[in-house]
Amino acid sequence: MELVVYLAGQIHDNRWRDEIRKRAKELKLPITFVGPMENHDRSDSIGEEILGKQPNKILVDDKASDFNNLRTEVLLEKADIVIACFGEQYKQWNTARDASIAIAKNKPLILIRPESLVHPLKELANKAHVVCETPEQAVKALSYIFETN
Amino acid sequence: MELVVYLAGQIHDNRWRDEIRKRAKELKLPITFVGPMENHDRSDSIGEEILGKQPNKILVDDKASDFNNLRTEVLLEKADIVIACFGEQYKQWNTARDASIAIAKNKPLILIRPESLVHPLKELANKAHVVCETPEQAVKALSYIFETN
Amino acid sequence: MELVVYLAGQIHDNRWRDEIRKRAKELKLPITFVGPMENHDRSDSIGEEILGKQPNKILVDDKASDFNNLRTEVLLEKADIVIACFGEQYKQWNTARDASIAIAKNKPLILIRPESLVHPLKELANKAHVVCETPEQAVKALSYIFETN
Amino acid sequence: MELVVYLAGQIHDNRWRDEIRKRAKELKLPITFVGPMENHDRSDSIGEEILGKQPNKILVDDKASDFNNLRTEVLLEKADIVIACFGEQYKQWNTARDASIAIAKNKPLILIRPESLVHPLKELANKAHVVCETPEQAVKALSYIFETN
Amino acid sequence: MELVVYLAGQIHDNRWRDEIRKRAKELKLPITFVGPMENHDRSDSIGEEILGKQPNKILVDDKASDFNNLRTEVLLEKADIVIACFGEQYKQWNTARDASIAIAKNKPLILIRPESLVHPLKELANKAHVVCETPEQAVKALSYIFETN
Amino acid sequence: MELVVYLAGQIHDNRWRDEIRKRAKELKLPITFVGPMENHDRSDSIGEEILGKQPNKILVDDKASDFNNLRTEVLLEKADIVIACFGEQYKQWNTARDASIAIAKNKPLILIRPESLVHPLKELANKAHVVCETPEQAVKALSYIFETN
Amino acid sequence: MELVVYLAGQIHDNRWRDEIRKRAKELKLPITFVGPMENHDRSDSIGEEILGKQPNKILVDDKASDFNNLRTEVLLEKADIVIACFGEQYKQWNTARDASIAIAKNKPLILIRPESLVHPLKELANKAHVVCETPEQAVKALSYIFETN
Amino acid sequence: MELVVYLAGQIHDNRWRDEIRKRAKELKLPITFVGPMENHDRSDSIGEEILGKQPNKILVDDKASDFNNLRTEVLLEKADIVIACFGEQYKQWNTARDASIAIAKNKPLILIRPESLVHPLKELANKAHVVCETPEQAVKALSYIFETN
Repeated sequence: MELVVYLAGQIHDNRWRDEIRKRAKELKLPITFVGPMENHDRSDSIGEEILGKQPNKILVDDKASDFNNLRTEVLLEKADIVIACFGEQYKQWNTARDASIAIAKNKPLILIRPESLVHPLKELANKAHVVCETPEQAVKALSYIFETN
Repeated sequence: MELVVYLAGQIHDNRWRDEIRKRAKELKLPITFVGPMENHDRSDSIGEEILGKQPNKILVDDKASDFNNLRTEVLLEKADIVIACFGEQYKQWNTARDASIAIAKNKPLILIRPESLVHPLKELANKAHVVCETPEQAVKALSYIFETN
Repeated sequence: MELVVYLAGQIHDNRWRDEIRKRAKELKLPITFVGPMENHDRSDSIGEEILGKQPNKILVDDKASDFNNLRTEVLLEKADIVIACFGEQYKQWNTARDASIAIAKNKPLILIRPESLVHPLKELANKAHVVCETPEQAVKALSYIFETN
Repeated sequence: MELVVYLAGQIHDNRWRDEIRKRAKELKLPITFVGPMENHDRSDSIGEEILGKQPNKILVDDKASDFNNLRTEVLLEKADIVIACFGEQYKQWNTARDASIAIAKNKPLILIRPESLVHPLKELANKAHVVCETPEQAVKALSYIFETN
Repeated sequence: MELVVYLAGQIHDNRWRDEIRKRAKELKLPITFVGPMENHDRSDSIGEEILGKQPNKILVDDKASDFNNLRTEVLLEKADIVIACFGEQYKQWNTARDASIAIAKNKPLILIRPESLVHPLKELANKAHVVCETPEQAVKALSYIFETN
Repeated sequence: MELVVYLAGQIHDNRWRDEIRKRAKELKLPITFVGPMENHDRSDSIGEEILGKQPNKILVDDKASDFNNLRTEVLLEKADIVIACFGEQYKQWNTARDASIAIAKNKPLILIRPESLVHPLKELANKAHVVCETPEQAVKALSYIFETN
Repeated sequence: MELVVYLAGQIHDNRWRDEIRKRAKELKLPITFVGPMENHDRSDSIGEEILGKQPNKILVDDKASDFNNLRTEVLLEKADIVIACFGEQYKQWNTARDASIAIAKNKPLILIRPESLVHPLKELANKAHVVCETPEQAVKALSYIFETN
Repeated sequence: MELVVYLAGQIHDNRWRDEIRKRAKELKLPITFVGPMENHDRSDSIGEEILGKQPNKILVDDKASDFNNLRTEVLLEKADIVIACFGEQYKQWNTARDASIAIAKNKPLILIRPESLVHPLKELANKAHVVCETPEQAVKALSYIFETN
């Protein structure tokens, strides 16, 4: 049995994603990881990259969002589990969005967040299946699904 | 035909909600407005208010979230439309959550946000049915649904 | 038992809608009729009416569509039955859209179309519950639902 | 991860489909393309081909539609993404139908249309995830889903 | 709390429907009963009644079915419970159809059938919530839903 | 806005239900309470009451279950919220069933249980929206949904 | 792309199933065929075969139905298309059931029936995607889904 | 065609699971079996194992439940069939939960229970597709799905 796991979170620094992928590989977990474009600049400019020069900043953003949302929706639909990682930087409304769509679609959600965010994330955390603080703990949660004793 | 509209957004300052309700009333729109608890302090302490003293801060938050999520889920399920209002203060992850659940459940979404938030909200805005900058515009959108010419 | 019926079709000439409403009223059918904005010019300009001047024609259209789609989705969701009326003028892609959404959501569909459109509408007609040529026939179909012998 | 993409659009001239398939193949995208019967005459006569001579033109069309709709529904259900291509010729109500069913079933939609059709397609375009003008851009959108940086 | 109950079954002799309605009325159950057209001849000729003379017998039947299916689908969708009554006469494939749609849509099903039909109806009966032999028993089952002790 | 609340739990002693209904009435909450038959003996004998003498004990139970499940499914489907009350007596598998169906159907769940049952109920409690120990607390949770500050 | 096709119909004489399977094999269609137990006697006695001697004829039937319904539901759920074949013998309520569940679950339905059954099957036929008279025609309909011109 | 079967039940003694797996293997049934963690102590301590020491017994239980529920929901979602085995020991509310979620999600349910539990399990048994008393009978039910005569 293979699982697909979507890694939701900011894309300025992807070390947390690398750690999850590396640890899962070490454990030989039968998991395919998917997620957003991890190159932040390209994510912001993908609209103009494909459709050409846009007349203003709002449309640059809106067209980039077209392609990012296309990607997210296709891959989230394939996912069996969503891991959403929050940190202390950035607004992370896309992370909140992906986590919430997982909740609304009954896809199990693992939330990683530092203790400092307990209060502002309390309602989202309350709906997650698992809340933890490190990528390592999230991988242990994934591994537990496959273990037999 | 009556509609139910959920007013998602921060609850520190509810003037934007008051404005929407007042304008809709002036227009005699057949709308019932629902939304989160608007008393911020009570929202934070509702867990202890009902269940009694909790052993630590994390549990105070978690128990409050139980009641806030119960309320949100019952009322969002009743809503025909969600209006999500973002401002420049606060993390507003619950606003992002409610907006995203509206998207995932195919409930039409009206997003109110200042121009300064265009970039960080670009993916959420891209999925909203209507994006505007003032409560007055949101009410005009509601009114348009009932107008015949 | 009350039913809600959505009247999908072009909005340049609304006499077909008037005829359906008038005949249903004469028969005292317990039906609420809903549908798109019937003032074609306003439907095209509603984006600028609410959001203000737009920088180009594409955005005028896109913003108008935001409000028209908001309206359509709220009202189609309420509908028990969709009547889609095709004529020989206009592209009528919105009519095809509303009829198709009815099909996809298992909402019974009554299609009104002149004989000249049999061939191009053959696949859509094939999925309709009832295909007829006049508003009067469509109202008879509605009436039949309430009759007991 | 493999994706299935449905290519909706007129079937008189299938060069746009060939271009999409050729470019996707060059990029080695793991995609299976499906779509309607691409032989227009056969699509029109498939009813009589399988069921035999029909008594009149309406039934020739209706029986052909049976088989075309069977095919479309089986293959659309398998699709992860729908690409709908509109051109300046033909009524293209089946294209509008397939695009709308994609919208209603939350299957991401890529719309290809010339600038001349911006106005009549404005509401459908408004619901598409991506709107572009060439098959090449549509393939870039597909490719972006698989790229990691 | 009001319930809607669909009375599926043959329409040549509607005394079983009359008995259910009469008994439910005597018990003042808050139930609205719906069901197929109870005038069998009209049910067979409704296609021609509304659309005019049809070229052959198959089309007379097919057009009548259009209106009967429109009616059934609208009313079944409203129903909270389906009562399907089988007897020893007629093929009753529409009764089997309505009962099966109730099963597929998770609408509770009450099946009335004589002992002589136990064997041929065994798989359908096995999926019904309640199987009984008389309209009186079916009404008692409805009444039990509203009783408090 | 009216809500329907299903009161799941053992039916040997219904004082907990009475308390919830009484307190909600005192607070004038716009709630209709529904639930299982509260007369335990009748619940066990309803099969024979309606269908007559059964040949053995297994069938007495199975026929009673037909009517109890009919009732439960109709009323649970109407419910906006489920309150499931566990106590120290009885196996209460029907309570677990009703609570679990609420979870599977995304109906918010309020769980009442004594501290002594924390361990055996830990997985069910983990999925409830609110876990409390008294009917009074459950009513406060209901009341909170309607309060505005 | 592989499809799963469920062959619904009487199980006293399975030559129609053999013909469909043989023709599909000759055409090398990538189809897995599933369906009910084709040994009629075993289908009737499977309850006692697995659970042992039953006290009366009604329970022999009911227990057999348990296993037949388990099988049908598992396999129908896997099916992309249902072929339902009606003949002039037997009550065929299970065939009507399987065809109706296909309709309710939006699984495309191919109906095979002799001309003599046009009238009693008119409402079911009206909801089928394709209605034909021979297994050969049904296989041509399946083949058409895979053909490209 | 491969099936996934979830084995719900107590995890103190897993011999019933071993028997099912062994017999299915002997019959070469193409089935993947999944289920809860079968090491009871680890199931109770998995919260602390992954997240570290918890402040009190309630939180030890709640955190363990997070991981157990994550596992159950991922694997139940993959299952085509659920086998729920009840015995005379333990409260088995998780077994009732898994069986009920199968019912609510229309996943066929096979219930294994000793005769002594007929009465308390009567409503759950009434909704199961198959009720039997031994693992061997459950495997025969699985095997019957794949047999052709």
